[in-house]
Amino acid sequence: MKIHNPPTVHTAPTYSHGIEVPPNARWLYISGQVGAGRDGKPLEGIEAQTKQVFENLKAILASAGMSFTDTVKVTTYLIHEDLIEGFRKVRAEQMGDHRPAATLVIARRLAQPGWLVEVEAIAAKA
Amino acid sequence: MKIHNPPTVHTAPTYSHGIEVPPNARWLYISGQVGAGRDGKPLEGIEAQTKQVFENLKAILASAGMSFTDTVKVTTYLIHEDLIEGFRKVRAEQMGDHRPAATLVIARRLAQPGWLVEVEAIAAKA
Amino acid sequence: MKIHNPPTVHTAPTYSHGIEVPPNARWLYISGQVGAGRDGKPLEGIEAQTKQVFENLKAILASAGMSFTDTVKVTTYLIHEDLIEGFRKVRAEQMGDHRPAATLVIARRLAQPGWLVEVEAIAAKA
Repeated sequence: MKIHNPPTVHTAPTYSHGIEVPPNARWLYISGQVGAGRDGKPLEGIEAQTKQVFENLKAILASAGMSFTDTVKVTTYLIHEDLIEGFRKVRAEQMGDHRPAATLVIARRLAQPGWLVEVEAIAAKA
Repeated sequence: MKIHNPPTVHTAPTYSHGIEVPPNARWLYISGQVGAGRDGKPLEGIEAQTKQVFENLKAILASAGMSFTDTVKVTTYLIHEDLIEGFRKVRAEQMGDHRPAATLVIARRLAQPGWLVEVEAIAAKA
Repeated sequence: MKIHNPPTVHTAPTYSHGIEVPPNARWLYISGQVGAGRDGKPLEGIEAQTKQVFENLKAILASAGMSFTDTVKVTTYLIHEDLIEGFRKVRAEQMGDHRPAATLVIARRLAQPGWLVEVEAIAAKA
């Protein structure tokens, strides 16, 4: 995995502008994960939901023999801009130093009314 | 293609939490498909539009020698939460038993005012 | 890279319905690019922001030894439907004749209040 942050593009504090994956990798596509416990009910607040999202991502990565350091791209959907700060705080705690390619979008809503955040990911391992 | 649904993550009724693709697959990226007929005009209602979306997806997959069972990830955009039920009904009829990784987001709008649903897909075949 | 535009699906004026990538390609995942200069501040208006977005994409592609002709999929987020026309005008100037798979969504907002457009891309080269 090779990081591309060309000097003509503004600095990216928590992500990489480009991530290159060589041929012959295994790929893992992860569905949008939400802040729901094993009973499927949404947890209370953006920080608890984000923590659950990253625990889910970690479990799905582990199931494929991967970890956060193998994530290539992360796409985050939040339902309100006021949730960005809480999301970023918990993401930094969970993801550590790894900086995948990333996109963050504020959507109108997610599939269930109580869901505040949804994160999908793509990972690859040679 | 290998499915990952770890036991610590809530059950996913109509999708898989993770889909793993081995090296050496051919990949097909499909543009967001909308419920427009060959004249480009939107069909009437969410069920007719969703049926057209999946007919388009099927035709594009077939052009690459693939089918729904090769889809790895599906991303759905709807313009209102009240459309989820109609979308899911038709998707289940069209997709059958195959459960790709999936994300569903309610957007503000799509590229044309009459479009209620847009679905993009990624497929892979060894 | 192989283009799939089956005759049963409406014509796609500025994109391809499906793009197929053979095995053994290098892949490049590019984060959502915004219309911010090197100081990170948003440029004025949709045309200036879109031009910056495509200059960023070009620089990141070049860093991996790629160019617009290697892009497989482009996803565009705009914060209002009135921005579509200005975005399309500049995209056509920047992208030239290459037609990747594409999705365009109108989102509620992007990560920063001044950002009008965000474009992420996936590219591949054998």
